[in-house]
Amino acid sequence: MKKTADLNACPIARAAGLVGDEKILLALRALFRGPQRFDELQKSTGAATNILSNRLARMIEAGIVSKQQYQDRPVRYDYRLTKAGMALFPSLLALWRFAEDWMPCEEVPPFALRHTTCGKLTRPGSVCSECGEPITTRNVAMERNEVAPPVSGLA
Amino acid sequence: MKKTADLNACPIARAAGLVGDEKILLALRALFRGPQRFDELQKSTGAATNILSNRLARMIEAGIVSKQQYQDRPVRYDYRLTKAGMALFPSLLALWRFAEDWMPCEEVPPFALRHTTCGKLTRPGSVCSECGEPITTRNVAMERNEVAPPVSGLA
Repeated sequence: MKKTADLNACPIARAAGLVGDEKILLALRALFRGPQRFDELQKSTGAATNILSNRLARMIEAGIVSKQQYQDRPVRYDYRLTKAGMALFPSLLALWRFAEDWMPCEEVPPFALRHTTCGKLTRPGSVCSECGEPITTRNVAMERNEVAPPVSGLA
Repeated sequence: MKKTADLNACPIARAAGLVGDEKILLALRALFRGPQRFDELQKSTGAATNILSNRLARMIEAGIVSKQQYQDRPVRYDYRLTKAGMALFPSLLALWRFAEDWMPCEEVPPFALRHTTCGKLTRPGSVCSECGEPITTRNVAMERNEVAPPVSGLA
């Protein structure tokens, strides 16, 4: 069918077919903090068991998540991002920044982001707002907000 | 409820609640090319009438899309991105780049992206792969791929 072919040819459409799902985005958000067990993912996504199973299966099939055994007795598994899954980091950072700018909320955000290269708190974006250097998964660390930290000099 | 509160406090969760939907992402993709009529959006999203109506209502309520009259006789409306909607551009660029890198497809992508500041074809990303300068909606132009163009020097 022509319409389907056109949609598939577009990379944004392919990405939309994968991550155009609230629970998948919430699972990704959790997995960027590290490997997660099923019950941990259930807590952070608020997804019912069957929904979460379905979404994890889709993520595994798409190659962005792998299921790994982390314990022998009893046998226990967790879920972790593959290299392809890690490549969704800029997308989540962009969504983060969008929501901070355009979907304000009275509650203290649960995390701030520090750019470990320059050492400063930074806002999710494609470059560090403090030093202008590119941000990757390797040079940022998530920090839980105990209180809302003062974030200076952010555009 | 504690769980809901935690989810709402996180900007990624708020964004996920809005754009964690395939048809909304496809509508955004279309709207970044300019104002669109309902029937045009239906074509580019492949969404049924009631689904598209529902998604446009959600986008309008979230303030990322506005419905505007563009003709008197007969009265005709189109949909266009607000300033908030335009702020989703980096998210779509990031998804584009992700799918190009990790969801390969044999078909020729329908669009390439040119960075009008430097004049070169560029890949969706937060900086231009040719000159390193930041990319915004104001310094890129979409070009329909007649044939797959040679794209040189892309990392």
